[in-house]
Amino acid sequence: MSKFWSPFVKDLVPYVPGEQPKLARLVKLNTNENPYGPSPKALEAMRGELNDNLRLYPDPNSDLLKQAVADYYGVQGNQVFLGNGSDEVLAHIFHGLFQHDAPLLFPDISYSFYPVYCGLYGIPFEAVALDQQFQIRVADYRKANGGIIFPNPNAPTGCLLALEAIEQLLEANPDSVVVVDEAYIDFGGQTAISLVDRYDNLLVTQTLSKSRSLAGLRVGLAVGHPDLIEALERIKNSFNSYPLDRMAIVGAAAAFEDRAYFEETCRKVIDSREKVVAELTARGFEVLPSAANFIFARHPLQDAGELAARLREQGVIVRHFKQARIAQFLRITIGTPEQNQALLDALN
Amino acid sequence: MSKFWSPFVKDLVPYVPGEQPKLARLVKLNTNENPYGPSPKALEAMRGELNDNLRLYPDPNSDLLKQAVADYYGVQGNQVFLGNGSDEVLAHIFHGLFQHDAPLLFPDISYSFYPVYCGLYGIPFEAVALDQQFQIRVADYRKANGGIIFPNPNAPTGCLLALEAIEQLLEANPDSVVVVDEAYIDFGGQTAISLVDRYDNLLVTQTLSKSRSLAGLRVGLAVGHPDLIEALERIKNSFNSYPLDRMAIVGAAAAFEDRAYFEETCRKVIDSREKVVAELTARGFEVLPSAANFIFARHPLQDAGELAARLREQGVIVRHFKQARIAQFLRITIGTPEQNQALLDALN
Repeated sequence: MSKFWSPFVKDLVPYVPGEQPKLARLVKLNTNENPYGPSPKALEAMRGELNDNLRLYPDPNSDLLKQAVADYYGVQGNQVFLGNGSDEVLAHIFHGLFQHDAPLLFPDISYSFYPVYCGLYGIPFEAVALDQQFQIRVADYRKANGGIIFPNPNAPTGCLLALEAIEQLLEANPDSVVVVDEAYIDFGGQTAISLVDRYDNLLVTQTLSKSRSLAGLRVGLAVGHPDLIEALERIKNSFNSYPLDRMAIVGAAAAFEDRAYFEETCRKVIDSREKVVAELTARGFEVLPSAANFIFARHPLQDAGELAARLREQGVIVRHFKQARIAQFLRITIGTPEQNQALLDALN
Repeated sequence: MSKFWSPFVKDLVPYVPGEQPKLARLVKLNTNENPYGPSPKALEAMRGELNDNLRLYPDPNSDLLKQAVADYYGVQGNQVFLGNGSDEVLAHIFHGLFQHDAPLLFPDISYSFYPVYCGLYGIPFEAVALDQQFQIRVADYRKANGGIIFPNPNAPTGCLLALEAIEQLLEANPDSVVVVDEAYIDFGGQTAISLVDRYDNLLVTQTLSKSRSLAGLRVGLAVGHPDLIEALERIKNSFNSYPLDRMAIVGAAAAFEDRAYFEETCRKVIDSREKVVAELTARGFEVLPSAANFIFARHPLQDAGELAARLREQGVIVRHFKQARIAQFLRITIGTPEQNQALLDALN
């Protein structure tokens, strides 16, 4: 604490991201990155951008990428917002759409950055308990609120909420923004972007860090009604004119254009997930139903913290959250077949 | 305006960046980019990073770049903060260090993003008038304040404040953070980073968008006392864990390591500036003394708005601010010798 700090800074409890180890050789199954590299067309587009034009500012509106996203989802450019990773997009959403008197609602088990944003912007919130099976119960969100947000599939559980349930939420909360955070949707769910033209209170966020294999490039997006997008543009243009650099704009646009590669890598991850689930189940683990590129599992006889430490000793990193209700679970990213085998071997 | 917006959003007046035209062929002297490309070593480092590792998150602390900056300036890593362009660094400074009861002070003619940040974070401010020669008068900042910020050299004037005057400011305001925004310092001034070990209230910001020719990559930094840096890290880690992508980290680090290229291109820009100043003066312009990679000039007989429009018709873009006191000035970026000649030809 220093006398120079803005008063709220001393009470901030920052988010702690998963470890990014500087050792190679580790089997890294802790931050839900894609085991496959980005589309070769994305790499090629970036290669073409590596020249003296880097002396020039990027397009502040990233129109090339905005149009690629709009084309992909069949929406208009003014329904798309872009940011420096979906974390930046989420931060602007909390700032620009969630500062109301009634509390923001989100699941008690969900992305642990949500309460951090609330601390950053002074937003009251209420964590709504998942049910005993770690599912979102829509009926629990029928109360006064200043907004609703949840990951779908949820993280770190991997559990999916069906589009019908999302529509119930939207209809029950016509005066609140409902944000569906679809970081993992491409691994087993249907995007709610199909609903944005029917619900002016729906905003869907996605990232290129998971299914598009571009975590190292930092690109995220939101799709929704132009009025919601306008709030985010106002915030963005009062914060940083050029959040996406030249490499990110062309690389992300090319990634959206390469459907074949995207679909193939998603399918491979899904196939691997089903194999890992079967193997872990055979070893006595309980695995929650996952629609993501990770699974959430516990063993009835083995302490999760000890298990994570034992895996690490054998060169496999997974994520363990020391948090009520889920302290006995491990979140394990789906890797390549070789990485998944290394995990299974380390468990033997 | 929408019922969904956080209340403050409707009053936001976003910053308007200089035009980034999509036509090539234009002589672009409007956003103070470097006329020379980035260091070939920076491009080479980025080329080496263009691979499947882009599927992985970057180092959230960007230690490679932090160390390159610390080595360059002879400070410690915990005295360095990094962000997605100096605009993001400035936003976090306003949020984390300037939210106090007393007003923030900055010059009436300075970076027009400062009042925008105040609107974003609800910070009271007072614009302190530059003197008749458009210089900062240190004595005018001896009043109750919640912080002080100014560009040095100032923008859009280009005028430099000497280090001795900055020390007077720091000594007169021991309970306020004084931020020296050195976007243009390498084109003719001495950095105040030499003072950070003596003044715990000094924070210096810089960007790689000007003297390092990497506007397209989005990297900015701040150097100061570890307590000030800690406030910024807390904000950053509550906002976005990974603001710098993998390309930006390695490209910026390589740019800092290539001193020879940096010094050569800065010298070329300075030489060109002196020639442009002489030519414009010979054509009857009044040019403020510039220590930047742009000049601020007015003609006693020609309206600045009309002149800017006439230049644009001839394919030369400069920046004109419709703002009290400076509405008759043009801000003109120093280009290559060929671009500068095109400007002079267009004026004939």
